[in-house]
Amino acid sequence: MSSHLTCFLEIDSQSDFTIHNLPYGIFSETPQGTKRVGVAIGDWVIDLAHLEAHGLLAINGHQDCFNQATLNKFIETGKHNWQKVRTTLQSLLSAENPTLRDDVVLRQNALFKQNTVTLHLPIQVSGYTDFYSSKEHATNVGTMFRDPKNALLPNWSELPVGYNGRASSVIVSGKDIVRPSGQIKLPDQERPVFSATRKLDFELETAFIVGKATELGEPIAIADAWEHIFGMVLLNDWSARDIQQWEYVPLGPFNAKTFASAISPWVVTMQALEPFKVKGPEQQPKPLCYLEENIANSYDIHLSIEVQSPQSAHADVICQTNFKYMYWSMAQQLTHHTIAGCNVQVGDLMGSGTISGPTEDAYGSLLELTWNTTKPLTLSNGEKRGFLQDGDRVVMKGYCEKAGIRVGFGEVANSILPARQFSFHQTEDLSYETV
Amino acid sequence: MSSHLTCFLEIDSQSDFTIHNLPYGIFSETPQGTKRVGVAIGDWVIDLAHLEAHGLLAINGHQDCFNQATLNKFIETGKHNWQKVRTTLQSLLSAENPTLRDDVVLRQNALFKQNTVTLHLPIQVSGYTDFYSSKEHATNVGTMFRDPKNALLPNWSELPVGYNGRASSVIVSGKDIVRPSGQIKLPDQERPVFSATRKLDFELETAFIVGKATELGEPIAIADAWEHIFGMVLLNDWSARDIQQWEYVPLGPFNAKTFASAISPWVVTMQALEPFKVKGPEQQPKPLCYLEENIANSYDIHLSIEVQSPQSAHADVICQTNFKYMYWSMAQQLTHHTIAGCNVQVGDLMGSGTISGPTEDAYGSLLELTWNTTKPLTLSNGEKRGFLQDGDRVVMKGYCEKAGIRVGFGEVANSILPARQFSFHQTEDLSYETV
Repeated sequence: MSSHLTCFLEIDSQSDFTIHNLPYGIFSETPQGTKRVGVAIGDWVIDLAHLEAHGLLAINGHQDCFNQATLNKFIETGKHNWQKVRTTLQSLLSAENPTLRDDVVLRQNALFKQNTVTLHLPIQVSGYTDFYSSKEHATNVGTMFRDPKNALLPNWSELPVGYNGRASSVIVSGKDIVRPSGQIKLPDQERPVFSATRKLDFELETAFIVGKATELGEPIAIADAWEHIFGMVLLNDWSARDIQQWEYVPLGPFNAKTFASAISPWVVTMQALEPFKVKGPEQQPKPLCYLEENIANSYDIHLSIEVQSPQSAHADVICQTNFKYMYWSMAQQLTHHTIAGCNVQVGDLMGSGTISGPTEDAYGSLLELTWNTTKPLTLSNGEKRGFLQDGDRVVMKGYCEKAGIRVGFGEVANSILPARQFSFHQTEDLSYETV
Repeated sequence: MSSHLTCFLEIDSQSDFTIHNLPYGIFSETPQGTKRVGVAIGDWVIDLAHLEAHGLLAINGHQDCFNQATLNKFIETGKHNWQKVRTTLQSLLSAENPTLRDDVVLRQNALFKQNTVTLHLPIQVSGYTDFYSSKEHATNVGTMFRDPKNALLPNWSELPVGYNGRASSVIVSGKDIVRPSGQIKLPDQERPVFSATRKLDFELETAFIVGKATELGEPIAIADAWEHIFGMVLLNDWSARDIQQWEYVPLGPFNAKTFASAISPWVVTMQALEPFKVKGPEQQPKPLCYLEENIANSYDIHLSIEVQSPQSAHADVICQTNFKYMYWSMAQQLTHHTIAGCNVQVGDLMGSGTISGPTEDAYGSLLELTWNTTKPLTLSNGEKRGFLQDGDRVVMKGYCEKAGIRVGFGEVANSILPARQFSFHQTEDLSYETV
């Protein structure tokens, strides 16, 4: 990749979507219009289905890869074709190439302003797995809920702890989140009550998308694992902490998480992220053989969270952290996932777990940022927050920058709607805890 | 339903697949042949794609419902059509109807001997959720692994505890199970070792298949829940107990379960099970409003497990239990699953959890039957078993019988293959614990 590569379109120097990025998504011109594959470039989306129909983007042996409602078919064509399409697009968009630059009709039909189109869930999520790979996050949660002296459980340092999430409720940025209801156990009552959650929280995560399937009983060797990863998105793993605390023993979180997991609409490829590779934290103890990896296996990705109250004219940045703090790598996660024989599928989404950094302003959830409401945040308009209130909007952003090259993820943003009114009598009607 | 309904085919009185049953599956004439929908009747499969092509099984507004590789499309046509197809098939198969009975060519083309065809996974499993709804099982596990005095955790009696399983590794009866490998923590060692599991176990479960989808944020009211259930299968939720014990805190079982979950090939419909409805156990405390159900919400289904050693000429029945012992109903499970807003999809598979009865011979796993190897089983050929050995074959069966009507599930059967040999050095090479 050359930093001298320039696009014939005018692209802001702070744009996430430079010619070095070229992330894939699914768009339609109207909310109910035909979905197809697009790539973000500056403020524009380039319509790959249109380029394909014009013979500018052929994939040998595959037809209609981009006239699709999800990226799955394109991803299934394999890594060789991911690279080929990337190279072709960089050439078509470069300032030196007249094919698209000088064809007014083609440009009119293939380029759309991003703010005029509708973005959809980019993949059909075959399966959703969420890991728990930030040492800082696991330590914080363990300190609060279990035992500060033994915050990290013994297995945490030996394997990338993960669990199966719910694929059906993975949604794309922009969709509103209805405050979930469920069973909550209040400390002063013998039995649980049925209530809207009072502890609605976000989790700042990234997720990778599996690009190459395996058969049942065929583990992925750690050296091959990166070949199975297509790209990454931002993930907000919405959580209801009070529902979680009551339900999660002994089989893990369920309704506290299954109401929504939101991802950013643009899938940033591993090729685009290549220049931002860094070494991850040193692993002590040294992992068992099957997880051993001695290469630069992490990425320098700046991550942030903004919260905007409905009473405020602007958003407050409440967290700044970085992907490079993650203890377990994506390759280690994927290898561990398959070591006992589990197969993976194209379109599997694998979440990092909440990404908390070493300092208090780098924690990736309100649970940690407010230390379970004991240290409420003060927004710039003076309002306080323990957990989220109705109307709050949460925006997560991510980008890489090095030597003048910027590759960004855009954002995952959702607003909170009030809880559903249930037709049956609720055991108790309790107002939300507002700190 | 009348018990006088008779089929023109000769059907053994002990057959699971009477004219009162008519379970749906997916078959092909050869292992790689075209998959389509079939119904089991006696020793035969009736080819619904063939009947549909001959105009004998039209579904208004839907085409090619049965010329499909999974049941999902037929299920999506809705309950009205499930009932219509059932009525049509009962008529076509009845001794009084000459349409099929007297058409030799049609019979030759539409009826296949079950032992000549290949059966496939009947549904595309959209999502897989596993509950934990047997009080006896939860009590046994809690007694062994936590605290005999507080074996049941406080949330267990308030909600149907469940967790997300891995949908990609749901397999059909007949497929061999490769003994999984992974991290195991031995009591006398500081760090885990990488090893084949020494505690390979089965879990006797049933599962229901969701037949009607919901939108995100739209909980299913308990009174409507049964309308969303298409049918049931037997489920063997294969488990590696030593991997499970090390990995499962705090987010639940993962690699210990994701290597395989096997289901029986024939989906028995709720209509066929209707005559076998019974009241479930009394629920104390009375569930919160959203889970309250005052109808016959369980089923009298006899369940058994057989194990056959490769050194033995026949199988030993090692467990006999019944679905009616389940504490939480399928409607309660489904309603709870959606109460916080999670959507469900046609083809979602929802496991009951291990079904253990009140007596020691009614426990649904080897973990319980051998009390974690402390009370090994003795097979009829004198061999002992703590957990399963390579070559063992496990067969689960289920049936209902009442007033001369029998409706059975057939079986889910798998054999154990030796563990995979890994190319990298294993930390320790340990022989399996054989009791």
